[in-house]
Amino acid sequence: MKVAVSRKEHFNAAHRLYNPEWSDERNEQIFGKCSNPHFHGHNYELIVTLLGEPDSDTGYVYDMKKLSDLIREHVTSRFDHKNLNLDTAYFKNLNPTAENIAIVIWRILRQQIDNQYDLKIKLYETERNFVEYPAH
Amino acid sequence: MKVAVSRKEHFNAAHRLYNPEWSDERNEQIFGKCSNPHFHGHNYELIVTLLGEPDSDTGYVYDMKKLSDLIREHVTSRFDHKNLNLDTAYFKNLNPTAENIAIVIWRILRQQIDNQYDLKIKLYETERNFVEYPAH
Amino acid sequence: MKVAVSRKEHFNAAHRLYNPEWSDERNEQIFGKCSNPHFHGHNYELIVTLLGEPDSDTGYVYDMKKLSDLIREHVTSRFDHKNLNLDTAYFKNLNPTAENIAIVIWRILRQQIDNQYDLKIKLYETERNFVEYPAH
Amino acid sequence: MKVAVSRKEHFNAAHRLYNPEWSDERNEQIFGKCSNPHFHGHNYELIVTLLGEPDSDTGYVYDMKKLSDLIREHVTSRFDHKNLNLDTAYFKNLNPTAENIAIVIWRILRQQIDNQYDLKIKLYETERNFVEYPAH
Amino acid sequence: MKVAVSRKEHFNAAHRLYNPEWSDERNEQIFGKCSNPHFHGHNYELIVTLLGEPDSDTGYVYDMKKLSDLIREHVTSRFDHKNLNLDTAYFKNLNPTAENIAIVIWRILRQQIDNQYDLKIKLYETERNFVEYPAH
Amino acid sequence: MKVAVSRKEHFNAAHRLYNPEWSDERNEQIFGKCSNPHFHGHNYELIVTLLGEPDSDTGYVYDMKKLSDLIREHVTSRFDHKNLNLDTAYFKNLNPTAENIAIVIWRILRQQIDNQYDLKIKLYETERNFVEYPAH
Repeated sequence: MKVAVSRKEHFNAAHRLYNPEWSDERNEQIFGKCSNPHFHGHNYELIVTLLGEPDSDTGYVYDMKKLSDLIREHVTSRFDHKNLNLDTAYFKNLNPTAENIAIVIWRILRQQIDNQYDLKIKLYETERNFVEYPAH
Repeated sequence: MKVAVSRKEHFNAAHRLYNPEWSDERNEQIFGKCSNPHFHGHNYELIVTLLGEPDSDTGYVYDMKKLSDLIREHVTSRFDHKNLNLDTAYFKNLNPTAENIAIVIWRILRQQIDNQYDLKIKLYETERNFVEYPAH
Repeated sequence: MKVAVSRKEHFNAAHRLYNPEWSDERNEQIFGKCSNPHFHGHNYELIVTLLGEPDSDTGYVYDMKKLSDLIREHVTSRFDHKNLNLDTAYFKNLNPTAENIAIVIWRILRQQIDNQYDLKIKLYETERNFVEYPAH
Repeated sequence: MKVAVSRKEHFNAAHRLYNPEWSDERNEQIFGKCSNPHFHGHNYELIVTLLGEPDSDTGYVYDMKKLSDLIREHVTSRFDHKNLNLDTAYFKNLNPTAENIAIVIWRILRQQIDNQYDLKIKLYETERNFVEYPAH
Repeated sequence: MKVAVSRKEHFNAAHRLYNPEWSDERNEQIFGKCSNPHFHGHNYELIVTLLGEPDSDTGYVYDMKKLSDLIREHVTSRFDHKNLNLDTAYFKNLNPTAENIAIVIWRILRQQIDNQYDLKIKLYETERNFVEYPAH
Repeated sequence: MKVAVSRKEHFNAAHRLYNPEWSDERNEQIFGKCSNPHFHGHNYELIVTLLGEPDSDTGYVYDMKKLSDLIREHVTSRFDHKNLNLDTAYFKNLNPTAENIAIVIWRILRQQIDNQYDLKIKLYETERNFVEYPAH
């Protein structure tokens, strides 16, 4: 049976929900105040989970220090204190909803972590709204 | 792969654990102080989770504002600041354990949310006791 | 300079806000859904704080185990899983608002704790509503 | 002795720390990544505290429902999902540090709440950084 | 469909990560400051989850009071305020990583809880590092 | 009126409560399981608060990045993943109760922070036990 190990990190960012193919009225209608043209922001809490077998020599599934370093190097250094729409390439043509941010983070980290480990992302946009990817 | 989106709401309610087919002694024996005839109460924290694919136009699996409104209209407006045993029809003949409250909430919301979305309920009765439905 | 030491405990109780000298209409008008005749309830989080000098032999201002035992014996054993209006003498003629519950707990504990220690009570009725007594 | 009553609310906003009388280099040097020209953001947690005597008829120092409504009408409706620098008049010429935001909120609410009540503001910019005003 | 019921308990313990077959240098290299020979410690938060069908008479999947008692008798009484490496038999020859502690707790409780209930363990070593067993 | 600014940091450490002038029996009697000779441990949460006037140029009372760096350099680097009794000079002859740890941290930081700022320490030993220094 596998063990899941999780590391929690955070980043603070501005964003705006917006579909460029829609009129301003439709963006306002669908996204409400989340579509404010001058942006708003969040303290995002990010939990990265890996599933695997504990190594018999270390007792670790994965070194949490190494996982923390990977998250900081590849995710939070790119997103922390940034405007997700304007300062990152990922959301130039992708709406930075919590769902899409979680999928982007999963894709970034999937390239950094050996495929022997299943990878899951949980992202809190606020204390009351959060997403998980993949989910089943 | 699907994304799970979750919304947290809360309600404050009184309840009493009680099986009307049992003697008072047996109710006291099985439910202890939770069977106090004058009721006690909790701040229930409710997390509602939907699983689905993000919409390509919005980037949403489900509009969290709409989910919050559904929960308030169909669940918390009926349970908040109520006596679950006396003020709601759901627990007239059903013991209001956390397990049963979660199942009742699932049934209420299942009628409001399209079947393309899987639905899960997590309910905290206290910070130390909580339930999830369905679980596997 | 003094040190403040604090112990957090909790209890779950039902209550109803109600002034018996008022009509039902006025109770409803002032207290809203908090005046539901069938009661509602909360998970109360209670923080008891003592101020004093650390003892030179122990390094303790007060033994937290002893403080925890005092709180359980004199406060939570009387309030936990109870209906504050019906099951306790304290609120027979006193409205069990968070303010009044905090004052009652302060008076109970003030009799148990030597006057060399200043005593303060903090009581969370919900995560978003809380009171402190005395305050200045 | 007085009782302090507190209400917690929240708002999500974008901001940028910036002194217009300084060069970009100096802003960058002093405020670091908090001076990102495209803004970043936070989930601000706001706690408003009033000190007073419980009313003998209600047992309330202040109706928390009324306090919550005042905060929403006068504070969070103006700041939530806004860019503090661009969308509010308060920070046109005032750097939106947590300190200054707390002082602004205090001034707004001081005009709404009778002077018989002392007023205090606590504002969490992140879980790890927070301010209180006034403090002594 | 099954319901999952969970109980949260905690214990405070000292430990040291160390592989006796390795040199001190290699232990230091792999485990860093977690291998400090004089130990360090944590407030462990333990969540025990059982999956099953609610009983038709009680509405309980499992009595949380009974589960809490089992955890205290068989787990926290053995681990709380202990040195996991020196004071327990479980980690004499097993590195007390969060992964291994969770597996040990699962094995202890599996013997106490009827096999009709699936059993899962979640263990927080810190607020930012936690593990789950079994996971899939 | 002054503003209080606070920064939260954490460290994980082992300790043992023990008075070397007492017999083992008396240590056991007074400190209970906290006197376990093989130590136990905690995740300490440390909140450092400074009181002062916001600077008119920056809007800061104190740069939180600078405060965080001071805490890490002078406090958590010395205490994190350490045995407080054996690995630090501060508790060679001083019992590492939460009270004494808070006083030691206050003395360390008082030398690093200009006297124009009042300094306060809040230290959580567990979620349920915490101390503040100085208090009045």
